[in-house]
Amino acid sequence: MDELDYRFLCELAAQLRVDSVRAAAAAGSGHPTSSMSAAELMAVLLVRHLRVDVADPANPANDHLVFSKGHASPLLYAMLRAAGVVTDEELLTFRRRGSRLEGHPTPRVPFVDVATGSLGFGLPVGVGLALTARRLDRLPYHVWVLCGDSELAEGSMWEAFEHAGHEGLNNLTAIIDVNRLGQRGPTRHGWDLGAYAARLGAFGWHTIEIDGHDPGQIDYALADARATRRRPTAIIARTCKGRGVSAVENREGKHGKPLEDAEQALDELGGPRSLTVEVTPPDAPATPYRYADGTLDLPKYAVGERVATRTAFGEALAALGTARGDVVALDGEVADSTKLEAFAKAHPDRFFECYIAEQQMTAAAIGMAARGWTPYAATFAAFLTRAYDFVRMAAVSRAGICLVGSHGGVSIGEDGPSQMGLEDLAAFRAVHGSTVLYPCDANQTARLVADMADLEGVRYLRTTRGETPVIYGPDEEFPVGGCKILRTGGQATVVAAGVTVHEALAAADLLAEDGVSVTVIDAYSIKPLDSAELVEMARATGKVVTVEDHWPEGGLGDAVLSALADAPVPVRKLGVSRMPGSATSQEQLEDAGIDRGAIREAVLSLLR
Amino acid sequence: MDELDYRFLCELAAQLRVDSVRAAAAAGSGHPTSSMSAAELMAVLLVRHLRVDVADPANPANDHLVFSKGHASPLLYAMLRAAGVVTDEELLTFRRRGSRLEGHPTPRVPFVDVATGSLGFGLPVGVGLALTARRLDRLPYHVWVLCGDSELAEGSMWEAFEHAGHEGLNNLTAIIDVNRLGQRGPTRHGWDLGAYAARLGAFGWHTIEIDGHDPGQIDYALADARATRRRPTAIIARTCKGRGVSAVENREGKHGKPLEDAEQALDELGGPRSLTVEVTPPDAPATPYRYADGTLDLPKYAVGERVATRTAFGEALAALGTARGDVVALDGEVADSTKLEAFAKAHPDRFFECYIAEQQMTAAAIGMAARGWTPYAATFAAFLTRAYDFVRMAAVSRAGICLVGSHGGVSIGEDGPSQMGLEDLAAFRAVHGSTVLYPCDANQTARLVADMADLEGVRYLRTTRGETPVIYGPDEEFPVGGCKILRTGGQATVVAAGVTVHEALAAADLLAEDGVSVTVIDAYSIKPLDSAELVEMARATGKVVTVEDHWPEGGLGDAVLSALADAPVPVRKLGVSRMPGSATSQEQLEDAGIDRGAIREAVLSLLR
Repeated sequence: MDELDYRFLCELAAQLRVDSVRAAAAAGSGHPTSSMSAAELMAVLLVRHLRVDVADPANPANDHLVFSKGHASPLLYAMLRAAGVVTDEELLTFRRRGSRLEGHPTPRVPFVDVATGSLGFGLPVGVGLALTARRLDRLPYHVWVLCGDSELAEGSMWEAFEHAGHEGLNNLTAIIDVNRLGQRGPTRHGWDLGAYAARLGAFGWHTIEIDGHDPGQIDYALADARATRRRPTAIIARTCKGRGVSAVENREGKHGKPLEDAEQALDELGGPRSLTVEVTPPDAPATPYRYADGTLDLPKYAVGERVATRTAFGEALAALGTARGDVVALDGEVADSTKLEAFAKAHPDRFFECYIAEQQMTAAAIGMAARGWTPYAATFAAFLTRAYDFVRMAAVSRAGICLVGSHGGVSIGEDGPSQMGLEDLAAFRAVHGSTVLYPCDANQTARLVADMADLEGVRYLRTTRGETPVIYGPDEEFPVGGCKILRTGGQATVVAAGVTVHEALAAADLLAEDGVSVTVIDAYSIKPLDSAELVEMARATGKVVTVEDHWPEGGLGDAVLSALADAPVPVRKLGVSRMPGSATSQEQLEDAGIDRGAIREAVLSLLR
Repeated sequence: MDELDYRFLCELAAQLRVDSVRAAAAAGSGHPTSSMSAAELMAVLLVRHLRVDVADPANPANDHLVFSKGHASPLLYAMLRAAGVVTDEELLTFRRRGSRLEGHPTPRVPFVDVATGSLGFGLPVGVGLALTARRLDRLPYHVWVLCGDSELAEGSMWEAFEHAGHEGLNNLTAIIDVNRLGQRGPTRHGWDLGAYAARLGAFGWHTIEIDGHDPGQIDYALADARATRRRPTAIIARTCKGRGVSAVENREGKHGKPLEDAEQALDELGGPRSLTVEVTPPDAPATPYRYADGTLDLPKYAVGERVATRTAFGEALAALGTARGDVVALDGEVADSTKLEAFAKAHPDRFFECYIAEQQMTAAAIGMAARGWTPYAATFAAFLTRAYDFVRMAAVSRAGICLVGSHGGVSIGEDGPSQMGLEDLAAFRAVHGSTVLYPCDANQTARLVADMADLEGVRYLRTTRGETPVIYGPDEEFPVGGCKILRTGGQATVVAAGVTVHEALAAADLLAEDGVSVTVIDAYSIKPLDSAELVEMARATGKVVTVEDHWPEGGLGDAVLSALADAPVPVRKLGVSRMPGSATSQEQLEDAGIDRGAIREAVLSLLR
């Protein structure tokens, strides 16, 4: 780089700092000091290495930039101003009601693929994007991720480092802004760049240690990163938090607040500038690879046959993969249990083994979704709780992902409570814009697996370990937001889902012997729930029993109570009432108080 | 070791294998092959290195053994049989209804500190135990953790490795059973012991690579581990899954199922044995260190003062720490925001900085609780979702921990949705045996912070970022399971908690201007909820509005609906109705539809 280039980069870095300070000052909050440490890193990236068509955020050839340290959003927005994407006027709407320039980035902002702000989330998604480039889109775009040093304490980062190292993702660069200061105080490793280099080197990454305020060193490192073969690169950059303003530079207690004296800071930084950057577009137009679409030929199961819904899930997803080239699958090293192996066998190119790393599995799915693929990620329902923050962030990211949790409930039997998904319905219901499905038989599962591909947001489907009888014909439809009325009776309504549907049907038979007739509803769509139908049936029968293989809180029962909030009738809610141990599936249902006998008792007690 | 010792160890290892096969055969399920790989490792540990008073599981001088690969439970139970803790008859109750020998270990079994079975959980808790030994109990007991190789893909393991390495916990040894085969197939690194050694070495661990079937090498490594100074030790042992039985040894597809031909396997292993081991007791009796108890002098706030509940939490916990020597605190590197820093300042010896690693923070708390301490761990409510699986496993472990989530709800304002706890009430309600508290003012917070120390199980308290007016006097009591009736009116009942209590009071004033009188309930105890009082008020007023700074699913509204299930009245549930952006606190409440205006509208619409 020549002298003029060097000067321009220094000036641009100063502008990015100035704009970070101005944005935070205008907002009265924000993270200017965390932005200032990475100003040179981002200035050099923007001017000399990022390949983006500024006029077309959807250009598939574009590089991707993820701010894993999302709190440095002022820096990102300052970059967008320099690139002409955001006006100076908009920059100063930072953190105001209605502004898309939120406190932490979301995809409301162009060129932002995923919401960040929960530390340890952006890099894992970046790995997903790089994996998509390599194995799905088959395009040469590069993924750059700006990471904080604090967030390297998050285990999810090491899931991501391991995944990227193992896959040899040389199209991925982590730029680690080692400013030494976390929110509360110094980080574990301070400016010991070697501590990070040793760890990352051991995880199979190419590492470069630099002075993060030296444009020359940064330029070399970024060029080296793009040119490196077979390995992802980590640029480990020593920086100063609050760099450039003596009142805050490298000082503790200056995290996450605007500068006290912004005027003085701007003076020290040389005042506002209006440099613009012509970001280099990608070398050539590109068309992402897409697998061919075929015909949907879902598996069909004979009524009366006993088939586990997890088996139907695997077989249906394999069929869906044949029909839709956009469908891909991710496994948490349990595909033999979730039955995702059926997809792996049919479509090995679109199957991703993520090993036992549920956060990384979810993040990779989010990255794939950001590039237009339709990912299904599956593990035990219990272990999806490991990724709950990532599911939450998927919703903030407006990501469209399908998550499938197997081994729901106590009905798994002998393995015991550590393996039982008993919180999943509550957790997924409480995700904004989510869909929660819980089929009870194989044909219903197959149809829902196919239909969930067309929904938006986070979609969750729960499957059951054990075999259950097929009760629906293969051509029956199961609209999301609907339900099925399996029996009609006048004295009470029993609402069940999944494994408890079969218990409810058996209870209806027992009750018939008692001379009591009940309506039985299969609420396979727990969110959205078929409120209209439920209200009608509840009113018609005057009494409701809900029964679910889940803790009593937050699941089917609470969903039904919500639906009936305006049209109240007495409801008896049955859920798992005590901590299970080991036992057979049927013993578990009995001990939990959710089997046919318990349902019968609940109905009779309501009628007493 | 002499020839006789060597032979005994080999025979004992064979017995542990035989008993693993027998237990799984009797159960018809289980993980014998994952047990067989670690038979020599555990035989040598049991006979020559573990220091445990078999007659007294509560002896504070005892070493601790954690099976992080909890699915190898048959091996653990076989060890307990050899040690005389479990009879052969009980061993064969494995996985049966009522047996304490569950599919995965829980503390129902003597010498088991925590439930395992969710991979990546045991080692983090082991770090917590070792930290407790070092910094709290101040005793020389050693913590041994048997890890699987598959689980090293979990980020939580690397949070644990980092934490232990940073703390220099030489009283901790991870024994990594590298049997090369995960559940579905080969692990990422197979038998590349060097890949693990490089990673762990970089994380500050002493590493020893051995043949995990050679008692001599194992004995040397375990002795070396206990003798190592300043660093934790990882014994990286190359083993064969299913070792000793040709039908399963080192074969894929043999995970998690009993051997097909158990008789043949037992023949090959030389048949059942009844060796017994006299486990060496600790060198000397020991008394754990305990901090002195003092007087409880909770902070008092004047009615009308504006104080953030997070501030009251920090000040109250500092006071509680003075009163109770068993209280300790853990931070996720946000103590300045959660206000845990008040405790850190008052009781630096009992304050643990866990950096941004919420899973490890929670696991360390569980380890401390297992040793009788009363831990409070705090971070943003949003980021506790990162540890949701660990919270779930805390419940399975019957662990008594206090978790405090700050920055609950949209009321945090400008930071935006990534920082807002909006799923936490649903998530914590759905944890078995949990308590969920959500105070609205500083005096209430202080009292609940103190009272929650005496509860059992997982206790969650949610605090608010912004200042709220103090509405209760400092001497008021707030029983867990109670509520406060703040206004009485005849036309509707408004149930609120935390920040919405103040909106509900303001709405009551607005409604009074409309000529409408409402009852306002502060439901600070969301679980258990004061059902009796709610039913009475609901019946008296005939209509209920619930309002919460949380998604509409699974939180306060659903809890109230559950309480009213038997005594239904029309309920209007107000919760955050759309994805927030940035805005001021009051704008957020308004946009979410949970402010005073929205409450007023809801009441009026119910009355129409």
